[in-house]
Amino acid sequence: MYDPYKLEHKTPTKKDYLDTTDFDQSEMLDMVKVSTTVRSYIKSGGTLETLYHKNLAMIFEQKSTRTRVSFEVAMEQLGGHALNLAPGAIQLGAHESIGDTAKVLDRMCELIMARVDRHESIVELAQNSTVPVINGMSDYNHPTQELGDIITIFDHLPKNKPLDQIKVVFVGDCTQVCASLMMITTKMGMDFVQYAPPAKWLNDDYLKIGRANTQAYGGSVRVSDNPEVLEGADFIYTDVWYGLYDKETPKEVYMREFYPKYQVNDEMLAATRNPEVKFMHCLPAMRGEEVTDSVLDGPNSIAWDQAENRLTAQRGLVLYFGGVAQTALDDIKRHKEDK
Amino acid sequence: MYDPYKLEHKTPTKKDYLDTTDFDQSEMLDMVKVSTTVRSYIKSGGTLETLYHKNLAMIFEQKSTRTRVSFEVAMEQLGGHALNLAPGAIQLGAHESIGDTAKVLDRMCELIMARVDRHESIVELAQNSTVPVINGMSDYNHPTQELGDIITIFDHLPKNKPLDQIKVVFVGDCTQVCASLMMITTKMGMDFVQYAPPAKWLNDDYLKIGRANTQAYGGSVRVSDNPEVLEGADFIYTDVWYGLYDKETPKEVYMREFYPKYQVNDEMLAATRNPEVKFMHCLPAMRGEEVTDSVLDGPNSIAWDQAENRLTAQRGLVLYFGGVAQTALDDIKRHKEDK
Amino acid sequence: MYDPYKLEHKTPTKKDYLDTTDFDQSEMLDMVKVSTTVRSYIKSGGTLETLYHKNLAMIFEQKSTRTRVSFEVAMEQLGGHALNLAPGAIQLGAHESIGDTAKVLDRMCELIMARVDRHESIVELAQNSTVPVINGMSDYNHPTQELGDIITIFDHLPKNKPLDQIKVVFVGDCTQVCASLMMITTKMGMDFVQYAPPAKWLNDDYLKIGRANTQAYGGSVRVSDNPEVLEGADFIYTDVWYGLYDKETPKEVYMREFYPKYQVNDEMLAATRNPEVKFMHCLPAMRGEEVTDSVLDGPNSIAWDQAENRLTAQRGLVLYFGGVAQTALDDIKRHKEDK
Repeated sequence: MYDPYKLEHKTPTKKDYLDTTDFDQSEMLDMVKVSTTVRSYIKSGGTLETLYHKNLAMIFEQKSTRTRVSFEVAMEQLGGHALNLAPGAIQLGAHESIGDTAKVLDRMCELIMARVDRHESIVELAQNSTVPVINGMSDYNHPTQELGDIITIFDHLPKNKPLDQIKVVFVGDCTQVCASLMMITTKMGMDFVQYAPPAKWLNDDYLKIGRANTQAYGGSVRVSDNPEVLEGADFIYTDVWYGLYDKETPKEVYMREFYPKYQVNDEMLAATRNPEVKFMHCLPAMRGEEVTDSVLDGPNSIAWDQAENRLTAQRGLVLYFGGVAQTALDDIKRHKEDK
Repeated sequence: MYDPYKLEHKTPTKKDYLDTTDFDQSEMLDMVKVSTTVRSYIKSGGTLETLYHKNLAMIFEQKSTRTRVSFEVAMEQLGGHALNLAPGAIQLGAHESIGDTAKVLDRMCELIMARVDRHESIVELAQNSTVPVINGMSDYNHPTQELGDIITIFDHLPKNKPLDQIKVVFVGDCTQVCASLMMITTKMGMDFVQYAPPAKWLNDDYLKIGRANTQAYGGSVRVSDNPEVLEGADFIYTDVWYGLYDKETPKEVYMREFYPKYQVNDEMLAATRNPEVKFMHCLPAMRGEEVTDSVLDGPNSIAWDQAENRLTAQRGLVLYFGGVAQTALDDIKRHKEDK
Repeated sequence: MYDPYKLEHKTPTKKDYLDTTDFDQSEMLDMVKVSTTVRSYIKSGGTLETLYHKNLAMIFEQKSTRTRVSFEVAMEQLGGHALNLAPGAIQLGAHESIGDTAKVLDRMCELIMARVDRHESIVELAQNSTVPVINGMSDYNHPTQELGDIITIFDHLPKNKPLDQIKVVFVGDCTQVCASLMMITTKMGMDFVQYAPPAKWLNDDYLKIGRANTQAYGGSVRVSDNPEVLEGADFIYTDVWYGLYDKETPKEVYMREFYPKYQVNDEMLAATRNPEVKFMHCLPAMRGEEVTDSVLDGPNSIAWDQAENRLTAQRGLVLYFGGVAQTALDDIKRHKEDK
């Protein structure tokens, strides 16, 4: 029986949260559990001080809205504090290596989160830090988005349909969000399809991870440019087309590649033949490019719930990797019993 | 009888604080009351946790000292927290519309404050947000300054002089601060004059608001380049001459327009024939341009009290629009009675 | 007998912490005491709320990692909050003088800390502020680093060796950190040597301060380019060679001046003939220039403990200059006795 107050693993099995591939399904489900139980508790007016006087250093090599705000609010709601080390605000990169920065921050803060240009940086940061490091997005993956997204998917599962029949279709560019969605949905045994032009398919290194997941947990992983794959989708997910960071693609180039075939619009939703299909987007969105207003603002869109679940996930992650997830759940359980 | 612990309106009548024109005199007086009662309480060593674990997102499209610091300190003093989303730090504008940013922030924060380039932006933000939005200055108005300023004026009213005999003279450029001062002083039934060269007078749209206020509440509103209007002033207020944001005027141009006639100096204070006249400035000041050191640092200056009342006002605003102004006053009253 | 809970001076003798020259040895030892007693208490799991609802404004004219993070965490751990006023984020410099900024901030915050380009700025800030101002580094000195460094030296003193026999050798450029180390070690009666090329020796104004200290407290102060001064060193300390801020020296120039003679490497440590010699660096370090990896990451390095003691020192400073150092120690003592 599902016990929302009891984790399978009482302490994290890895110090850092760099890549969900480091965790098995039951570990990911523990993170989901602490996230959603704390969410219910806070939404019903409960308060926690589990991270009282604890500090999270947030390093941003890139701009961020959702990741920044969700981690800062998460820490504050749990009694702690997050420091915003914005692009260019600290010595990092200019006069100091990421390893040396890690060795200093871990003497002052209990947790580090970083959004980095290159995945090697987050790995180096974690290797040099004695305190847990959370990957707030790299050019390789986006694991905090993964946790928020799988919570959102669980929140909106069609009734009475087992996980191995859930179909998630990512439409468009093989961004790190696309890769991350593939990793987490296959870890949960779902059917994942990327619908995109062949030049933009997830590469073999990524697909190998998906295939290993399907062998362990069931489900399937596919890439295709055939619109028939849309049929039966429970979730349609897309991301921007302009690519990444310093490697942004000019608009005329990406429009030629993706538009109009891969735009998520009312016709594409209809092509799923599932009137209950849910639309997801990691945001920010380029309205009129990868998605129309009618879809993003329409009744099938769960993109704003999904944004809110960034906060749900970050609370879970700082508790889990702070080593106090079970403590928080015990506190909540005791509080419920007292009432 | 004035009861400092009891508001006329127990809950805000509008969700957002974009423009004081949306509120009548009694509503503005409620905001003044919660601001000043909380100020007395905190100055006497009292503490409040009314906004415990509540988060205010502060969006800045422009640099800010007073607005930024006063809101951040206000939230901290009330048990909450403010997030500083500095120019260029989030995706806003770069890759995300203000509407979409609002829809995300309102899922994570209980309040939003924004300083924007264009007034349309704050309106769009408020329309898209389910949580209250506070206008931290636009190119049209500066309503948080208004509340702080009217509190400062009330703090320094000449004894035994009724409000409808109080004369407030704004000297110089028709900035958004000038417009805001006109709106709040006429709402309180005072006499407002802008003393400036005709090319810099408040436009008719603004004056129409002032005239509507005088019809409802008494007082008067005028623009003039005749120095005789200075006579009898209770308050002389000025602002910088260089204009706004990206539309800054070159120094030689604005000096020709305003200098020396509209500089607030000892001679101008003398021209009021009121030795008790008070000098106000929203700051920052360009010393030697719109005001001399002798006035800004002199005995008639209340500019630093006025700056401190930015904090007084912000505490009132976050409590009022957070829907907990009466709660805070009840807590203070109970605390006083306990002692 | 040393009483870790009792200060010599119950209240600070100066409002501001701009320069350790303003304080005598016993005052500096009080700052060390509050810093280290609070450190022990917090490391053993104790919590303090001594700065509950107090706000520290941090002004940065220059980038900062250690100073920024250590002050922000210090305030949070003591129940308060620090505001990060980053380069370019406020009106300072652009449209407002430092004096006027001080007059506004002191109405909203209980403490101000600033890292400034020019020492005159921190002096002007302090003169215009009614609340305590802490110098977070200028082009003249770095007194918060001084306090952290002397704590680190005390933590790693050779056993049974009196202070007046402790030899501290600073190797390299006469940076403000070099000058500050000279000031604090001579104030504690130690032997200080700067080992550097003559063109880079501390100037006479600095040395005069050191000589005054040695007359008051014993010890000695010297500058030399003779490698024999390394012999018997208990501490070797270095800093980067590229100089300061806008006056950064090109690499080929500084390498010619300092390299290889003044690089701290294994040979230099051996030249001290003290296998227990400790290596210190204020960080950030340019690995391969002023220090080798083998030294910075080696067993003699205490550079990371030293970085952590920035936090130790900042907690002490905000308590001391906040006027609540003895209060905090009383609270800790009472808490210990209760247990």
